[in-house]
Amino acid sequence: MNQFINAKETLVTDAIDGLIETSGGALTRLDGYPHIKVVCRSDWDRSKVALISGGGSGHEPAHAGFVGVGMLTAAVCGEVFASPSVDAVLAGILAVTGPMGCLLVVKNYTGDRLNYGLAAERARAFGLKVSMVVVDDDIALPHLPQPRGVAGTLFVHKIAGALAESGADLDTVTDAAKAAITDMASIGMSLDTCTVPGSVKEVRIASGKAELGLGIHGEAGVEQVAFEGAKKAMDQVLKKLSSRLEEGSHVAILNNLGSTTPLEMSVLAHELVASKRAKNISHIIGPAPMMTSLDMHGFSISILPLNPKNKSHLELPLALPAWPGMNKIAAARLQPLPDGLSPIKPIPSSNPKTRALLEQCCDLLIAAENDLNILDAKSGDGDTGSTLAGAARAMKGSLDMLPLADLTQLFRAIGDELSQTMGGSSGVILAIFFGATGDACANGKPIPKALLAALERISQVGGAVKGDRTMIDALEPALQALPDGIARAASQAREGATQTASMGSAKAGRASYVPEENLIGHKDPGAEAVARLFEGLAKSI
Amino acid sequence: MNQFINAKETLVTDAIDGLIETSGGALTRLDGYPHIKVVCRSDWDRSKVALISGGGSGHEPAHAGFVGVGMLTAAVCGEVFASPSVDAVLAGILAVTGPMGCLLVVKNYTGDRLNYGLAAERARAFGLKVSMVVVDDDIALPHLPQPRGVAGTLFVHKIAGALAESGADLDTVTDAAKAAITDMASIGMSLDTCTVPGSVKEVRIASGKAELGLGIHGEAGVEQVAFEGAKKAMDQVLKKLSSRLEEGSHVAILNNLGSTTPLEMSVLAHELVASKRAKNISHIIGPAPMMTSLDMHGFSISILPLNPKNKSHLELPLALPAWPGMNKIAAARLQPLPDGLSPIKPIPSSNPKTRALLEQCCDLLIAAENDLNILDAKSGDGDTGSTLAGAARAMKGSLDMLPLADLTQLFRAIGDELSQTMGGSSGVILAIFFGATGDACANGKPIPKALLAALERISQVGGAVKGDRTMIDALEPALQALPDGIARAASQAREGATQTASMGSAKAGRASYVPEENLIGHKDPGAEAVARLFEGLAKSI
Repeated sequence: MNQFINAKETLVTDAIDGLIETSGGALTRLDGYPHIKVVCRSDWDRSKVALISGGGSGHEPAHAGFVGVGMLTAAVCGEVFASPSVDAVLAGILAVTGPMGCLLVVKNYTGDRLNYGLAAERARAFGLKVSMVVVDDDIALPHLPQPRGVAGTLFVHKIAGALAESGADLDTVTDAAKAAITDMASIGMSLDTCTVPGSVKEVRIASGKAELGLGIHGEAGVEQVAFEGAKKAMDQVLKKLSSRLEEGSHVAILNNLGSTTPLEMSVLAHELVASKRAKNISHIIGPAPMMTSLDMHGFSISILPLNPKNKSHLELPLALPAWPGMNKIAAARLQPLPDGLSPIKPIPSSNPKTRALLEQCCDLLIAAENDLNILDAKSGDGDTGSTLAGAARAMKGSLDMLPLADLTQLFRAIGDELSQTMGGSSGVILAIFFGATGDACANGKPIPKALLAALERISQVGGAVKGDRTMIDALEPALQALPDGIARAASQAREGATQTASMGSAKAGRASYVPEENLIGHKDPGAEAVARLFEGLAKSI
Repeated sequence: MNQFINAKETLVTDAIDGLIETSGGALTRLDGYPHIKVVCRSDWDRSKVALISGGGSGHEPAHAGFVGVGMLTAAVCGEVFASPSVDAVLAGILAVTGPMGCLLVVKNYTGDRLNYGLAAERARAFGLKVSMVVVDDDIALPHLPQPRGVAGTLFVHKIAGALAESGADLDTVTDAAKAAITDMASIGMSLDTCTVPGSVKEVRIASGKAELGLGIHGEAGVEQVAFEGAKKAMDQVLKKLSSRLEEGSHVAILNNLGSTTPLEMSVLAHELVASKRAKNISHIIGPAPMMTSLDMHGFSISILPLNPKNKSHLELPLALPAWPGMNKIAAARLQPLPDGLSPIKPIPSSNPKTRALLEQCCDLLIAAENDLNILDAKSGDGDTGSTLAGAARAMKGSLDMLPLADLTQLFRAIGDELSQTMGGSSGVILAIFFGATGDACANGKPIPKALLAALERISQVGGAVKGDRTMIDALEPALQALPDGIARAASQAREGATQTASMGSAKAGRASYVPEENLIGHKDPGAEAVARLFEGLAKSI
């Protein structure tokens, strides 16, 4: 049993209890476990036509998930894929039916027809008005005299539910249900069979194949077809429905049969919308799981011609989370990309002092390339030196294009440059660092404070703080000391870098995946780079 | 590729298009395919704080499914399990951010943090107010300095979304998001890994095992535990959360990680409600798929302490079908079973003529037992004779208990008796037949008309009509002729029964599964029984 259940025997009652307990008081049930499993609206006052459906379990959210204002009054639940007993159906009828009577919505399976039919008969002996409709929407076998009832049942629940809620009488509700049943058609496709709790899963559909025209009880499809992707699959399904889609406006239920992912269901929705065969499908309900077959990896489409009456019933909003609502299909409206995606090229300007400082920084990093690579090889992939030196070389080559006379723009430009030339996480982090420094300058902060504000930003984005064995361990003390002069900053950076060698576990960056014993005794290459930079600058100034 | 997609490369864009096309015009996207995949509210006027989330795809409905009034303004979607690019995030920010600014809700993965962080930096260079929060709710590894962001993200979407919609400023929205992130905790369990499109599925979890503390990208869980059913599984998960549940009222998100069936999710919900460890969980969101991991067969629980403020934000209704709403947990309120489930025992009465007629019918069926069995063996399991004779013998034994003087009650009593003594589909159908006859008598119909009305009822319930090779082929002409006398009825019944021998394909009942060549030349045993009954009665009257 690799399913989240306790035992086959308690599966359905446990699940019904879970549904009721998390319904916020909207649902109740009859006190008839284990044989009588009837879920009811708890606000029901018998003043309108009651709508009762049900059948075997395993099709959730159908049917108990559709009990609520504007849909079902009660759901009579059987065991997995087994009809509820006559007594259970009768209990449901007697519990909710008032003077306006009730409509039973039954899917076309012999057990359901007979048990609901006999229960209806018994209820009539009590003087209750009971009518019954049988949903037989499956067109998998066009010549079958008794087609199965599948997801089209939801059309009936919604239309009859809206009518009943509006106060319509039993004949009106029944006639609307019958009209919908006559007009609708459904067909499904699956890539795999379902796993029946307590049974070994049948392996029937080979990889590369799909079953077309399957039922919702694990029974084999009418044919196995080659599976060649979502577009073709949708076309095969729509082809079966095409004779029913020839004219007028239609609504489609796009139903998830169980374990098809939302991504796949959305792809199928797109293929439905894109298909020429679906040009007369103007509205859609879903994609969503509505009438599932346990964990079946498949989908089904049910269609119904729209007329002003059933349209108004189908589009009436509901508070039931299982009901996805009906939407008009529309091509995606596109919004143009906003301006500003390509960083604005700064206007170059000159400042010999700034240019010299920048050049010196680049040279210092280029000179440290080999040492930093060796250090990085202890805890990473040995490329910190090359990464920084490569970025420094690129920077030297673009000094002529930089706005050297405008510090705000210069820092931002350096950030943009690094995000393109440096790559990797460090490139992004340094891009954020210099961009944020530019921001702070723009807000009037002096450089040391701007750099500290930027450090806080990369701490927030990158998640590393001092003590995490990153460049921050050298950079933060250096920047804190900068107002006291570059020499003090350099010695603080050196001290911070040295301390990283005794930090056992890295908490951010790639070194966090390296065991402690490989780190101890080796400085963090990022921190070392910062120390070298400040030491070099201190020497020359 | 046994998934309903077209190609790995177009999976995400196809799915986004499907989502937008079926959104009823509520969603739009930026015109930046394939690299920039940004889904936006189409009614957005930039007048409030914008809420932007996103990340790798494969977690649907997160995040694009949560774009709408009261939740996200835009979702920036990457490829499956891959962060969107800096440009994509920047495009999203620039497209929706107005003077009130925007909040980026980022799950704690390095790629997302960095790309959202740099995009935020770039957007700030345009003068936009951008803040960013990082969700790190996963407690699988309690000592991990950078916990992953998982389904707790939904708390942030909902709380920040409600606040933003109410017109709150960026700081207020950001602070509320941060407070929720600090307070929340999540953990997941799975019975199987997920299927990454285009990759071979990793088989990692043996049958009978579950992974506890897994991520949402297919990464292995912290530990493999023995899987011993839903109750134990829920207990293991809640145990991990217990130190966070010690006091006060909490809300739990019960999240389907992908392919767990609604039945299983409801069982898990029930176990959550029933667990002592969850006594401080007063509210629930779900069960529903909210933050999935493709088709992972698992679930996760995220908890958050409730206070009056976040409660009001979480319970505010939304029109998004992906959001299941927050409900108060409550024990199931039970409704007593209705009276009337045990058929009312009729008051016995006597009528020698009726008694003699009934006895004669029983004797006729008992006499035909062997012949009918032989006939049934041609098309069924050879027990029609025994089934009818058995019911007839039981009926003879209970004649003293029948209300022989009241035809309405008598027919109903015969129906009740047959539903108990005869069994099988035929027992139910005959029970409906006699019950409906009683109904019709009660409504004042003379017996022949009452019998015909009842025939129509079983036709509706059982689905068989004349010509379908059932007892109806004899019964209908007999009942039609009954006003002309029993002799005429008998000859009509005989003719009808004879005709069944030339009916190739049965359209109802068990004989519909028998090939045509096995049926031709043999009468339907039910029709033959009817003919014998009428012939016997005609002879004696």
